[in-house]
Amino acid sequence: MSFVNQVEKYAELAVKVGVNIQPGQTLVVRTPLFAADFVRIVAKKAYEAGAGHVEVEWSDEEIAKLKYKLAPDESFHTYPEWRAKGLEEEAEKGSAFLSITGTDPDLLKGVDPERIANANKAAGAALNGFRNYITSDKVSWSIVAVPSVGWAETVFPEEKGEAAVEKLWNAIFAATRIDQADPVAAWKDHLATLDEKMEILNKHHFQALHYTAEGTDLTIELPETHLWVSGGSISKGGVDFVANMPTEEVFTAAKKTGVNGHVTSTKPLSYGGSLIEDFKLTFKDGKIIEASAKKGQETLDRLLENDENSRYIGEVALVPHKSPISDTNIIFFNTLFDENASNHLAIGSAYAFNIEGGKEMSNEELEKNGINTSQTHVDFMVGSATMDIDGIQEDGSRVPVFRNGNWAI
Amino acid sequence: MSFVNQVEKYAELAVKVGVNIQPGQTLVVRTPLFAADFVRIVAKKAYEAGAGHVEVEWSDEEIAKLKYKLAPDESFHTYPEWRAKGLEEEAEKGSAFLSITGTDPDLLKGVDPERIANANKAAGAALNGFRNYITSDKVSWSIVAVPSVGWAETVFPEEKGEAAVEKLWNAIFAATRIDQADPVAAWKDHLATLDEKMEILNKHHFQALHYTAEGTDLTIELPETHLWVSGGSISKGGVDFVANMPTEEVFTAAKKTGVNGHVTSTKPLSYGGSLIEDFKLTFKDGKIIEASAKKGQETLDRLLENDENSRYIGEVALVPHKSPISDTNIIFFNTLFDENASNHLAIGSAYAFNIEGGKEMSNEELEKNGINTSQTHVDFMVGSATMDIDGIQEDGSRVPVFRNGNWAI
Ligand SMILES: [Zn+2]
Ligand SMILES: [Zn+2]
Ligand SMILES: [Zn+2]
Ligand SMILES: [Zn+2]
Repeated sequence: MSFVNQVEKYAELAVKVGVNIQPGQTLVVRTPLFAADFVRIVAKKAYEAGAGHVEVEWSDEEIAKLKYKLAPDESFHTYPEWRAKGLEEEAEKGSAFLSITGTDPDLLKGVDPERIANANKAAGAALNGFRNYITSDKVSWSIVAVPSVGWAETVFPEEKGEAAVEKLWNAIFAATRIDQADPVAAWKDHLATLDEKMEILNKHHFQALHYTAEGTDLTIELPETHLWVSGGSISKGGVDFVANMPTEEVFTAAKKTGVNGHVTSTKPLSYGGSLIEDFKLTFKDGKIIEASAKKGQETLDRLLENDENSRYIGEVALVPHKSPISDTNIIFFNTLFDENASNHLAIGSAYAFNIEGGKEMSNEELEKNGINTSQTHVDFMVGSATMDIDGIQEDGSRVPVFRNGNWAI
Repeated sequence: MSFVNQVEKYAELAVKVGVNIQPGQTLVVRTPLFAADFVRIVAKKAYEAGAGHVEVEWSDEEIAKLKYKLAPDESFHTYPEWRAKGLEEEAEKGSAFLSITGTDPDLLKGVDPERIANANKAAGAALNGFRNYITSDKVSWSIVAVPSVGWAETVFPEEKGEAAVEKLWNAIFAATRIDQADPVAAWKDHLATLDEKMEILNKHHFQALHYTAEGTDLTIELPETHLWVSGGSISKGGVDFVANMPTEEVFTAAKKTGVNGHVTSTKPLSYGGSLIEDFKLTFKDGKIIEASAKKGQETLDRLLENDENSRYIGEVALVPHKSPISDTNIIFFNTLFDENASNHLAIGSAYAFNIEGGKEMSNEELEKNGINTSQTHVDFMVGSATMDIDGIQEDGSRVPVFRNGNWAI
């Protein structure tokens, strides 16, 4: 398959399987400028599939960076209300949302972390209403990746410019099954496999999970009404969609106050344009009481101070070490890929749909049901080839869930 | 001066003389994607000048065209409310607005004109509130140009791609005095010259203007309280700005019902992505009662049907045939340039500030004072090297205002 052909298939997959656009629906694309060529193909596929409008919210890495360097301090405490309200308005109308990721993971290196933290806080607060539509699957949404030069050169430091970009495209195609004869069919098979695991986990209804690996000994209790969910989602309007492409995870919510022990990250985490690497978190009754990073300590500290609940975890996701993404043997420095090649946890908010009836609950009700609500949701990777996970049942007995990094259930 | 140097000077001129950005102010840039490199320089200059935020509203020619070709008919009757409200919100806050023009003037060739007319109508209605801030100079705003490949190849059909773009950049630099040693100083001189003409015209306070040239014999009455205005403007907040770069015009409002005779266009008009060429308009008591074009008749007809007042003219602008723009001897196929190398009139709305106290008037009051209000404001070019214009005084006597296309006053 030619390169152009593969890009087209990827765009088609994003439109048809990712957000699963419906006739007359608006597709909102949130994207960096460097992905323009891809976004044009997405627009074409969307209109061909019957979309009524393709509304693009562009952002530019370089202008963002200029602002961080040159604007006055006050500029980082606000976010344009009308953009946030616009997204809410589109969500209320039932539009579908496609986000393009792929920014240089270390773009904001050297920028004052306080500025970044303030900007993230302001955006988080402004986007609260919109995020609610997303985290409770009220609308169909998806995230796909397009390589920027900066990202590609981070992943393949031995290559430069277009050569690095092409190499990263090929890794993306492999990770998203675009290199297979019929990607749409391959995705249907794959989603069915994830659904099986989900059903087994829901049948077991474990009280807790116990993680062990080098640098990790962590127990995570699960809320009474937790639900395991897989990569395939259903919007409020009844439309199947796939929120992450790739997705290899089956995930649920942690009991907010039921996390104890310590866990060590196994892949770098790009957060707010800076990398955090080799970090260890210690938990007591759900709260992160210690956090140390070999690189990016200040960024990690600020992440945990985002709001009052960003010292608790929300999501618990199981991902086998063996997958098309892992098989590429690449560290992507991009959460969309790295989290789908590794067991991960999310600092911050749980997904409302990960407990029974959660989609209809207010934040207060979600907290009452034992899960964390926060403006933050940042996945970090903890899985490895040596990780074991036990499921703990009501009677205290243990069931092997993961052995040596892969499904044992 | 190197090319990069000239682009930098042009960006600086747009920021400092065009919108005249103030410390802490937000600059809203409305721009096509192809101008990204230039917009980044603008952002840098704006932040260096103390801007608090640079908020960019990007649009993409190609995605716009895809929509016209592929979307369902219903899609052209709406405009995203939140974008329109967002611009109003920014205007209310006192942000400055920079628009980048330069799209291929014939981009939408072959597209169903009804779709374009509907889309323009929907946008016009949605942007009504925002346009009010602009047309009454409540905020500082400016328009500058960046060449797209399509535009450059229209202007220089013998050149292709980057060569055409570079040639057009050089023409833009000449037309905007960037090729002079100190463009900011050159602009100050130039604006002072325009102000002189403005003052003379305001002193004369003509009752009417009478235009004669080949294909043109037109009388335009001026409202009792009309004011001539030149390229230099002052916002409600008291900030000097220049709305168009280049600008060579001194302009006022027509008396809505006082236009009689006929006028022939002297340059092509790009409207809504299509070219209208060699057209003749016949007026009776202000209304366009006949309109025929050798090219683009359907587009012209739809323009005149935009709303109930788009068969009347608003603005009357005097521009000498001799100017840096005319000296380039180029037809730009872009109103920003062509209107500033030629006497022109605007179909549709007059500027509120072109009558005494107009800035504070409602649309109803503006109409009561004899000037046209419309969602349309489309300038078209009528000047030529043979055009004479007489100013008619209260006692019926005549004063030569233009002779052979140039100022006679
Ligand atoms: Zn996850
Ligand atoms: Zn997550
Ligand atoms: Zn004008
Ligand atoms: Zn005008």
